[in-house]
Parts: sequence; structure tokens; C-alpha cells
Amino acid sequence: MASPSCSADTLALMFGANTTNAAGAAAFICDQFNTVSTKFTDTAYAVDTTYLLFSAYLVFSMQLGFAMLCAGSVRAKNIMNIMLTNVLDAAAGGLFYYMFGFAFAFGTPSNGFIGKHNFALKSIPSSDFDYSYFLYQWAFAIAAAGITSGSIAERTQFVAYLIYSAFLTGFVYPVVSHWFWSVDGWASASNLDNLFLGSGVIDFAGSGVVHMVGGIAGLYGALIEGPRIGRFDHSGRSVALRGHSASLVVLGTFLLWFGWYGFNPGSFTKILSPYESGQYYGQWSAVGRTAVTTTLAGCTAALTTLFGKRILSGHWNVVDVCNGLLGGFAAITAGCSVVDPWAAVICGFVAACVLTGFNKVAEKFNYDDPLEAAQLHGGCGAWGIIFTALFAKEKYVNEVYPGKPGRPYGLFMGGGGRLLGAHVIQILVIFGFVSATMGPLFLILHKLKLLRISPEDETAGMDMTRHGGFAYVYHDEEGLPMKKIEPT
Amino acid sequence: MASPSCSADTLALMFGANTTNAAGAAAFICDQFNTVSTKFTDTAYAVDTTYLLFSAYLVFSMQLGFAMLCAGSVRAKNIMNIMLTNVLDAAAGGLFYYMFGFAFAFGTPSNGFIGKHNFALKSIPSSDFDYSYFLYQWAFAIAAAGITSGSIAERTQFVAYLIYSAFLTGFVYPVVSHWFWSVDGWASASNLDNLFLGSGVIDFAGSGVVHMVGGIAGLYGALIEGPRIGRFDHSGRSVALRGHSASLVVLGTFLLWFGWYGFNPGSFTKILSPYESGQYYGQWSAVGRTAVTTTLAGCTAALTTLFGKRILSGHWNVVDVCNGLLGGFAAITAGCSVVDPWAAVICGFVAACVLTGFNKVAEKFNYDDPLEAAQLHGGCGAWGIIFTALFAKEKYVNEVYPGKPGRPYGLFMGGGGRLLGAHVIQILVIFGFVSATMGPLFLILHKLKLLRISPEDETAGMDMTRHGGFAYVYHDEEGLPMKKIEPT
Amino acid sequence: MASPSCSADTLALMFGANTTNAAGAAAFICDQFNTVSTKFTDTAYAVDTTYLLFSAYLVFSMQLGFAMLCAGSVRAKNIMNIMLTNVLDAAAGGLFYYMFGFAFAFGTPSNGFIGKHNFALKSIPSSDFDYSYFLYQWAFAIAAAGITSGSIAERTQFVAYLIYSAFLTGFVYPVVSHWFWSVDGWASASNLDNLFLGSGVIDFAGSGVVHMVGGIAGLYGALIEGPRIGRFDHSGRSVALRGHSASLVVLGTFLLWFGWYGFNPGSFTKILSPYESGQYYGQWSAVGRTAVTTTLAGCTAALTTLFGKRILSGHWNVVDVCNGLLGGFAAITAGCSVVDPWAAVICGFVAACVLTGFNKVAEKFNYDDPLEAAQLHGGCGAWGIIFTALFAKEKYVNEVYPGKPGRPYGLFMGGGGRLLGAHVIQILVIFGFVSATMGPLFLILHKLKLLRISPEDETAGMDMTRHGGFAYVYHDEEGLPMKKIEPT
Repeated sequence: MASPSCSADTLALMFGANTTNAAGAAAFICDQFNTVSTKFTDTAYAVDTTYLLFSAYLVFSMQLGFAMLCAGSVRAKNIMNIMLTNVLDAAAGGLFYYMFGFAFAFGTPSNGFIGKHNFALKSIPSSDFDYSYFLYQWAFAIAAAGITSGSIAERTQFVAYLIYSAFLTGFVYPVVSHWFWSVDGWASASNLDNLFLGSGVIDFAGSGVVHMVGGIAGLYGALIEGPRIGRFDHSGRSVALRGHSASLVVLGTFLLWFGWYGFNPGSFTKILSPYESGQYYGQWSAVGRTAVTTTLAGCTAALTTLFGKRILSGHWNVVDVCNGLLGGFAAITAGCSVVDPWAAVICGFVAACVLTGFNKVAEKFNYDDPLEAAQLHGGCGAWGIIFTALFAKEKYVNEVYPGKPGRPYGLFMGGGGRLLGAHVIQILVIFGFVSATMGPLFLILHKLKLLRISPEDETAGMDMTRHGGFAYVYHDEEGLPMKKIEPT
Repeated sequence: MASPSCSADTLALMFGANTTNAAGAAAFICDQFNTVSTKFTDTAYAVDTTYLLFSAYLVFSMQLGFAMLCAGSVRAKNIMNIMLTNVLDAAAGGLFYYMFGFAFAFGTPSNGFIGKHNFALKSIPSSDFDYSYFLYQWAFAIAAAGITSGSIAERTQFVAYLIYSAFLTGFVYPVVSHWFWSVDGWASASNLDNLFLGSGVIDFAGSGVVHMVGGIAGLYGALIEGPRIGRFDHSGRSVALRGHSASLVVLGTFLLWFGWYGFNPGSFTKILSPYESGQYYGQWSAVGRTAVTTTLAGCTAALTTLFGKRILSGHWNVVDVCNGLLGGFAAITAGCSVVDPWAAVICGFVAACVLTGFNKVAEKFNYDDPLEAAQLHGGCGAWGIIFTALFAKEKYVNEVYPGKPGRPYGLFMGGGGRLLGAHVIQILVIFGFVSATMGPLFLILHKLKLLRISPEDETAGMDMTRHGGFAYVYHDEEGLPMKKIEPT
Repeated sequence: MASPSCSADTLALMFGANTTNAAGAAAFICDQFNTVSTKFTDTAYAVDTTYLLFSAYLVFSMQLGFAMLCAGSVRAKNIMNIMLTNVLDAAAGGLFYYMFGFAFAFGTPSNGFIGKHNFALKSIPSSDFDYSYFLYQWAFAIAAAGITSGSIAERTQFVAYLIYSAFLTGFVYPVVSHWFWSVDGWASASNLDNLFLGSGVIDFAGSGVVHMVGGIAGLYGALIEGPRIGRFDHSGRSVALRGHSASLVVLGTFLLWFGWYGFNPGSFTKILSPYESGQYYGQWSAVGRTAVTTTLAGCTAALTTLFGKRILSGHWNVVDVCNGLLGGFAAITAGCSVVDPWAAVICGFVAACVLTGFNKVAEKFNYDDPLEAAQLHGGCGAWGIIFTALFAKEKYVNEVYPGKPGRPYGLFMGGGGRLLGAHVIQILVIFGFVSATMGPLFLILHKLKLLRISPEDETAGMDMTRHGGFAYVYHDEEGLPMKKIEPT
């Protein structure tokens, strides 16, 4: 927040020679104004930090959402396993992102490809970053790892999980986020001196940086491991391996929805920035608009999926609706801050179709992804990147990414094709980089026989063989309570 | 926030003719003050929007609370169905409230009966409304629909649900909220030029507008559908059809409690409004008081229910305590901002009795409401409206509804009977309007055979017949894990 | 927030005799500044209250976390019982803390041992306390009672629970919090005129005040009741009585993690306090640092437990990891605001070892604590108190506890042994006081045969015998749905 510029010299001249102590009076008054200015600075820090911290807490709650969504989506014999992976994403992610990840992602000054300062929070807080910013970014990093865990659920060795999760949170995700979000990143829309294609990539909250990265990593894991035993029959036809609890799926989905209000609107990281000072319109309004576009995209995708699946399968299916909803969210994440609400409705509608389409493709190719993570986060994430390049509105782009008037915006809004060009390249680059890092990692783990569990363990379930027992115990040693609650 | 009024002319005169450039110096100083004033305006928008958005997120989390409460309260064969209705309340509500609901409710300028601007967020943001306000009101609208879904659970066709939910969220609820909450509403306490009965209705967060509307809609649905098969035996005696999971009931109840802190204190929509400038006492304090009255009413109702049910039934029943707690919340919602904490204790105590009483009446008349929604939200909501008219405190009424000194307040606090009169009329009007809209709607659906499912489907459960399978699958195709976790 | 001090007299003299109305101009200008100053005061109240209220809501969500953690950790026959105790902690705690607890804890002015004003929120709001502060402290009080309920789960009469919960929330916990947190407390680090050992105790968010109190109360309850039937076999060997749902354990753990961001960073109670005015560094930064230290301690403890248990037991155990995580949080709670992130890693590592060690000791002595509450909250809490005395950083101590430069800080940071002395005494005093109050209470209940349920009831489960039935009903009267979802 710029300070009111009070020039004591100017004021003293205006008071003039007849004023007893013109210089003193002017200095006195300007000192007061400087104090006021200082207090505004303090106030802005407090308000913005409050906003950012509570947004970070919301994003963190998505990890709980992922845990419940994953637990509900797997069979009862693998619940302990999948929940442990979700707890560990957060825990291991905390340490690795603290030690390396944040430095790779945002460490500054740096080149366009990787950050190289601020390891283990060295020199933080600074005028660049405060702790709250680190916490917010950590919550994003663990979300990416959470996405991947869904794709490889029910058949992956726990050791493999530890390795890929640390690598993804500590290196792959941070590097990608550096490219698109750091002010030094080669494709960042905030790298004003050097905008890629004169535009930079507008991936506001990470349809690409988070969702595609997590989804494509999952794609490679699931491809290399192959489908779960029984997922496709001998003639290659799909057999549903239903998750054990739709209640947990709905719980997880709503928690993710709740947390997405930290993910998307929170990505402004500041709320006290006027666009037209003294008016009702400022960043607070853009933040609210982002919450609304996010909501509408998810709602539209859910309704589209509901009716689409009713036509395709004859059922009103709550689990499919939940996935459709999340697909809408993953898609709007890139453009949530720069599109109008009506455009978000389009975004959600198409996202539901994209998800349904990719699910058909996956089935055709006998690709097994227990959470549809690659289809949902990879597929809808990619659609969201394209969508942004088509519908980003000039006014919003210039407000959200200030300091460079006349920058490209959405093709359908009259902003030309340069943003679309940048966004197509973003998709290719993310696909390429994740393929070049996570692909070999999963392959090496596969070759070392560290990736997939044995068929015996898979059939018996990992909870009993690796995690000390099943997640649910509805009887005690005497079997007493179950006698009553069992069906006769 | 009014700006400090700096008159350069006045100041220039005081500097006088001997000052070299009196007009310049005065303008210089006042310009600085105007900049400061502008910054305060910006700050207030940022602070109030932060407050309102996070409150909206909390209110949204109530939808998750409803979903879990409903899921836990129905039998295992209808879980998918009830959860899907809750997801759809949020999703369909999002689109309908965006397109129509908000405009009917708050569109301005308008007449006293229905709003007629701002469809699909047209002309928003404006000095009247920002996106955050829409989001907050949307979260309220879907709560009303969520209440109704409980009353008609376990026997309603999904198509009927889609129709009534859209109608309630898109029309009925918005119109009622216009009457009592819009500045143009005929009975609004904020319609200062034209206060109904010289008072207007003080339904701060919606014991009537939200809870009675949802509850009475549910009453008609449940009355027209009739009780679930087996709910009353041949001699008309009540048979408990216990919900399948008390854990989900408790989870849902706590989530609703959590979300109610957005619902009640959040209804101020602004927190940065001093009552006595420069003192510790302002709207922030009233917000805190509202959180405290809400808490105490719920706590008292829970304890009253605990001991009451212990005496009546001989058990310490957690599900009943949860319902009692929610009854206390529904009751305090109208008056939460204008009563003292001690009065909230009375509110909660009576609410628990009201709920117990209405449950007795419901049983007597063979009325079946799986969630007790009509009794709880309708009954305790109506009590809350009366309670407010009795205990609203003069000082608080004038602070929370400023600009009209001397307005009526609680009868027992010496404020006369006019507020009570207005509130009795509110109850009658809400009852009448919801009866005249939702009653016919449910009747028509009934006549068209779109309302209730067939007895066969009801017995088999809707999850299997309509939603593609049961919510829980504790075994896989080989039955392996269950072998171990089943009782011997 | 200090006001900019504008002296009209000084300014008038500088304007001097030639200014037409020097006194008037000076008064005019200073009036404007005073208005500005007043508005800053208002803004700070609004910002700080927003921060405190949402932190309070997060702390409240921990009660839901406890409920789910406890429910998941007990056997299926006692779920209703344990959940009811958690709902009642919140509800009864609300009334007792409102009537007595807050007054004992913070009522001011008071002596060093117990507060004696502000019963039932009398004279609140004041310049000392606002409603939001009460709400925040209430959420803390019920957390302490929640801890204890875990230790005595599955074998305690409900009446005993009601009695000890009211006593703990209404008296024992408030007195301890008065000692260490009230500005009048004899050992408070904020009692600047009279710092205990010249230092006072730095128990920022309550490793001692909340966690040790709850844990030691649980220790006495569990010791006096003795282990659950079947917990140790005839030769005294430990038999695991596994909880019924690991999903609920993970859900509860994540909710506690989420809520801990209100517990620890929220304990600042204010966020708008500059340390160096006009710079990026202020209390907002310390708040963020506290969130980071909390995160890192928990993450490290979780990872340490994961690998430790893998070595000890051969399994990757998610429930143990959850407990380890919570142990790390309980430990960092005392020093979270005054240590560097790297120290938090040490704190978490040792906390995991402490918990494992105390669990070994408990098993050796046939001590049965279904939630490991005494070991976790008591043991790790005590370690956290010691840790703070070793690692508290001079700079942070002086910022967080201002007004007394040169106060002692961590021994390993060069701050001498006085803080360690004070902290050892804190541990002894808390242990002594809780022993002297809760010990006799549990003993008397035991003597009166009000403490433990009968062996028959314990074997059958309390849900069926006391609470009206089991928590889960997966079939209806016709047994229909279960037919399909049961294994063949």
C-alpha cells in the first residue's frame, strides 16, 4: 500500500515566511501523516495475513477430504493403506517442502527454471515472503501428491509410495510451480519483464500446476502398475470394483468443496488491494467473484453428470455426481479469477463431458484408476487451461495481473490467440516434464520390484498383510455386540 | 465508513492572508486526509469481505453437516438417495439461486413483495451488493432445501426431489427472504421508511425465513406422502426405524454447530462498524455476543434434552441430544444478535421442551418425519420468533438495526407488544405462504404419481432400485476381508 | 494501537501570530488526526476479533475431532457412550464455563490463585475482555475435558462422567489457566510486576495448562478404574482391544490437526500488532511462524512414529502414526510461538520417542488408556514444557511477551536456567494440583460405586445397556439390505 506522500518542503513553502515556524509546522503535519501511512501498512499486513492463513487452513482441510474420498473409494481391505498414504502426504510433504520444495519453487532471486534460495525457510520472513505464504504453498504441494495416490491405490507397495511422494512434493511439483507462479518463472504471468509469448500463462490456482501434475503422475503410476486384479475380465470387459463406503465419498467431496474456497479465492494471497481506491470495487470483489465462479463450475458439472449418467446408465449415481463436481472444480481452477460467472457455467458443463469422455477412453484401454484421478485432475485440468485461454476477460486479466496493460486475454473475448498459444504449450510442457521425471521413477521402482505388491497380498488386501489388520472391527473377542446388530 | 470531513476552504480562512499560499496549504493538507479516508474505505471493504466470505464458507459446511446427519438418520438401504439429495441441494441450488433466487430475494430497487433485478448476477458488484454477499445468501438458500429433504426421506421419488428443491431454492425461499431481509421487504426491520407495525420483524438469521420455511415445506411433503412403511404398526403405535449410524449423526451435528457460527454471527455481514468510535465496543463485540448466545442456547437445549429424555425413556440418548442441540440453535437464530446471554439459556431450555412436545404430537398423529425436521426447524423456529419478541433488548435492537431510534423491542424487556404482534404475523404469513406454494406443489406431484416410490421399492430400499447399489460394500467378489472382520 | 499524538498547542505556536487563526487551524488539523486515530482503533478491534473468532471456531472443531477419534478408537459396543460424552463436554462445558469457569480463570482484578469476577459474563464486554475472548477460552476448556474422556473410555458410568466433566471444566482447568495465563496469575509470563523466578512460565497455548491437565486427570481416572476386561490376560500380557474404525480415527486426527491451527496460532488472540511499525515484520508474522512450527512438529512426530513402529512391530500402522502426530502437536503447543522451525523438528522427533516410551511403561504396569490420552497429552505435554525451556529464542520471547526486556529464555539458546526452573515447577505444580483435585474426586466416585460400570454391562457394551442400542444398524426389520451387502 503506497503511503500518502506528504512533502514537508512543499508545505513549508506554502505556509511561507510569515508563519512563525513554517518548516516546523510542515514537518509536524507530515510526520503525523507518515505515522498514519505506517499504520496502514501494518493493517494491510494483518488483514492479508489473516486472509491467507485461514485460506491455507482451508486448503489443508482438502487433505482430509482426499483421505475420506480415497478411503470411501477403495475396497474395505485397503482402507488403512490408502489413509496412511494421505496422512503421509501431509507429514512427509511438510518436511520435504520445508527443506527443499519451497526453495525450488519460490526461492528468489533465481533463474527461470528453478529457485535456489530459502532452503529450510532461510531468510524468511522477508519483504518477499512471510511464513504464511510458505504454509499456503505447502498445503498446495501436498494436494498434488494426494491426487496421485488415488490413481495407484489398492496395489502399490508402501515403500514406493514414500519414494514417489517425497520426489513429487520435494522436486517435481516445486519446479513446475516455479515456472508458472514464481515472479522469475519462464512462463509466469507475473514475470513482467519477460512475458512468455508476450503473455505468460494464466494458471491462477493450478489446473495445470497442481491438478495436471498430480493427475499425470498418477497416469504413469497406474499405467506401469497395470489394473487391479479383477478390474477387467478375461475378455477385457470392465468390472466395477466398488468402493466400500459412499458416505465417506460424499464426506470427502464436500470437504474438498469446502477446501476449494481456500484453494481458488485464496490464491490471490492478498485481499486488501483496491482497484479503484475509495470505491466498492477492489481485490475483495475479485476474491468473491472467484468463489462464485468456482461454485458455479462445480454445481454445473455435478448437474450435467447427474443427468448424463442417468441417460447413460439408468441410475441417479451419487458417486459419479461427486466426481463430476470435482471435475468442474479442477477445470475452473486455472481461470477462476479472470472469467465471468456465466463462463464458469460453460466451464463446468464441458468439464463433466470431458470427464465422462476420458472415463470411456480409460475403460476402452483397460486403464484402471480407482479414483479416476488421471481423468479427473489431468483431463479436466487440461480443459480448464484451454478454457481460460478462451474466456479470460480483458478487465479481469489486467486487474489480477497488473503492471502490464494491453496483455493478451481470452480468444473468444477478443483477446487474440497468444494466450491460447501459451496455454497449449503449458499443457505440453507439464505433460513432458512429468513424463520425464515421474515416468522413469515409476519404471525404476517397477524394475526393482518395489512398485506393485504381490498378487497374494493384493487379493488378501494390504491392510491385513502390511498394516496390522483391517480398518473396521465390529465385534469384540466374544462377538457380543455384533450378535445384535447382525441381520438374523 | 464516513470520511473525516476536511474542508479546505475553512482551513484556508484560518490560515489567513499572511500565509503565503493559504489555499494551497489547506488543499494540500485536506488532500492528504482525503487519501487517508479513501484508504479506510478500502480497508473496511477488505475486512468486511474477509469476514463475510469465511462466514459463507462456514454456512456452506452446514450442507455437509446436513448430508451426514441425514445419512446417519436413515436406514442403510437409503443412504445413497439421501446423500444425493444433499449434494443436489447445493448444486441445483447454486444454479437456480444464481439465475433467479438472488434476484427475487434482494434485487433492488423493488417492491415489498418480490425483487426484480440482478438476475444471473447482472449489475453485480455494485455499491449495494458484492459477490461475497451473493455467496453468503446462496449458502442460506441451500440450507432451507436441506431441511426439507429430511422430512420426506426414505420414500420420495428422486424426480420429485429435483422439482421441489428447484422451486424452493429458486422461488419460495427467495420471496420469503425478500419480505423480511431485503431493505425493500414489506416486513423488514431494515425498511426504515415503512416499518411494518412501526416495528418490522427481527428475524436476524432466519428462525422463520430459513428454518420455518424449510420445516413447513417438509411438513407438507411428509403429510402428503404419509409415513414410511412400518413406522406405525397396525394399531397405530410408533415403531422406531432407527438410523443406520449414530457416528454420522454426531458428525453431522457437530458440523452443523461449526457452521452455525457462520450462520448467526455471519448474518451481520459486516464486522467493522463502530458503535462508539474509538472504544472497545462495536459491531465486532455484537458479533462475538451473537456467537456466545448461539452457543449457550444450543448447550442448554442439549442438556435439557439429555435429562428430559433420561426421565422419559430411561436412556442417555446421544441422537436425541443432538436433535435437542439443533433445536436450540434453530430457536436462537432469530434473536441471537439482540438478546443477552442469560436469555439465550432460557431460549434453549424452552426449545428443548418445544421439540419434545412437537415430537409427542407428531407421534400421536402418526406423522412420520425421519429427521424430525418439521418439529425441529418448524417448531423450534417458531418458538425462536416468539422468544425474540419477548427478550430483545432495547440497546441491542438499536445498535443492530440502526437509524430508527425508539423502535419497539422485547415485551418482557419493557418494549411493548408491537414487536410481538409483528412476529406473530410473521409466523402466520410464513405458514400461509409456504402452505400456499409448497402444499399444492407436493399435492400435484402426488396426483401425478411422481411423489412417492412404490411399496416394493421402499421395502427394498432406494439405493438398490434407483441409485445403482448400496452405499456400503464390506466385501469383495471373493468375500475375503469380511471373513476376518465378521463375527464368528 | 497508540494514537498519533497531535498536539494542537504545539502546532498553533509554530503557525504563530501572523496566522489569522492559528489555534483554530491547529485544532482543526489535530481533530482530523484524532478521528483518524479513532478509526484505526476501530479497525484493529474488527481485525483482531475476526482473527480471534475464526480461531475459536477452529478450536471448537477439535471437539468434533475428539469425538471422531474417540469413537473410532473404542469398540463398536461403546460408540454411543463415548460420543455422548464428547457432545456433553461441549454442552455442559458451555454452561459451566459461562457461569463459573471463565470467572475463575480470567476474572479481573484478582489474586494470583483464582479469579473472582465476571461470573456469567457480568461486566463483559469491557476494555479487558470481549465476548470473542470468552468463546475462545470456552473452546479450550472443553478440549481439556475431551482429553480425559479418552482415558476412561469403555468402562465409566455416565453419571461419573457428568460429575468430573463439570468439575474439570468449571473449576480445575480454570484455576490452572489462571495461574499461567491470567495477567494476575502467580506464574504467568504476563504478570510483569511479579514474574515468577524472574521469568514466569511460557506455556503459550497450553502443553501444560490444557494437555497435562486433561492427561493427568485421565491418568487418575484410568488408574482408579483399572483396565478394561480383557485388556491384559491372566499372565498380565497386553491384548490389543482394537478400535472399531480406523477411518474415524483418521478423520478425527485430521480434524484435530485442522483445529490446532486455531489452538496454537490463535493463542496470540490479536494479529494486528506491529513489532517494527511500517515493516513486514509484526505479530502477523509470528502468527504464521507459529502455524509453521506446529505443522513441522506434528509432521516430524508422525514420520518418526511411522518408521519407529515399522522397526518395532513390522507394520506400517496408521493409527499409531495418528497418535504420534497428535503427540507432536501436544508437545509443540507450549513453545510454538517462541521457537524456530528447525527446533520444532527436534520437538516432534523427541515427542514421538516420549510417546512410544510412555506407552511401553504403561503396558508394563498394566495401565489401560484406550486413547493413550495420559501418555500422549500428559507425557508429550510435559516434554513440550521442557522443550520450550531449552529452545525458546530471545528475540521471539521478547516479542511475544513484551514489556520486560532481558527476561530469561531457552537454556540451549544461551538464556540461562531460570526458565527451565520455572517450567520444571510448572510440571510439578500441575501434577500436584490435578492429583489433589481429580484424584480424590475419582476416588470418592469409586468408593460410592459411581465410577465403573458392572462387568456384565462392560461385556455387553454400554450402548445396549445404557444408551438405547448400538450405534450402527445395517439392517431393517426385514433384514433386507444386509442380505445383499453381506458376504456369502
